[in-house]
Amino acid sequence: MSDVTDRELEALDVAECLRLITPGGIGRIAYTGRYGPTVYPVNYRLYEGMIVFRTAPDSPTDSDLRTGIPGAEYRVAFEVDAFDSGAREGWSVLVQGSAHHMDSEPERAAVRAAGVEPWPSGNREQFVRIMPSRITGRRVRRAG
Amino acid sequence: MSDVTDRELEALDVAECLRLITPGGIGRIAYTGRYGPTVYPVNYRLYEGMIVFRTAPDSPTDSDLRTGIPGAEYRVAFEVDAFDSGAREGWSVLVQGSAHHMDSEPERAAVRAAGVEPWPSGNREQFVRIMPSRITGRRVRRAG
Repeated sequence: MSDVTDRELEALDVAECLRLITPGGIGRIAYTGRYGPTVYPVNYRLYEGMIVFRTAPDSPTDSDLRTGIPGAEYRVAFEVDAFDSGAREGWSVLVQGSAHHMDSEPERAAVRAAGVEPWPSGNREQFVRIMPSRITGRRVRRAG
Repeated sequence: MSDVTDRELEALDVAECLRLITPGGIGRIAYTGRYGPTVYPVNYRLYEGMIVFRTAPDSPTDSDLRTGIPGAEYRVAFEVDAFDSGAREGWSVLVQGSAHHMDSEPERAAVRAAGVEPWPSGNREQFVRIMPSRITGRRVRRAG
């Protein structure tokens, strides 16, 4: 009860945000899809300053992230967080930017070499990268 | 490497989704904000079939979720997941619906009694509930 009243919210700078998301792992891609705002977890890596993940061709995520206009990009958010439920402490980072389908084989080969692996099996050869235009983060921790 | 090729993706029905999110805890609210798609983690509870969480009045989340039209609601997504990185298994549930600010004191009192607690301290007396219009989920697990 009262043990939550000593927690404070701290804004994180971009360098700290990048440090926190550099190890990769599970993140959440959010975009406006056919049913409104949509969020899915994906396994990501940070690759040359961009978020990179893989999805299945023609999956809802794949088609929702295509504008239908070649070269045009789709605005998305990508969120990564970590929480310690016992200590009630944690952090979250929000990357906002545009999603780009990596449709050329040289692009995909570079990312595959960087070890970006999806968890589900099957054809997950659709690579998406997010070029950040805004990176913000916050941490909740014990005050003082 | 090859140990990820035996994972399969399974769609979850609504009953299973509700069972998974009933304990409450950390979830992620997603909406289209002033900088495009936006995602933040919040501490939530399931209360009478709705997702309920608390935020600070006049925070970006609070003002972004107001349409400016009294009684009008804002389309949002709410995502909850759990993953076991070692086993590379996990699940995620996506609730899509409309967000409603609980501006009346009787509404807030009921939710406060249900034990919806934010982690950060300070004035977090803005209660938001999400009425689900669509609930979907998926599980990634070892095949066979």
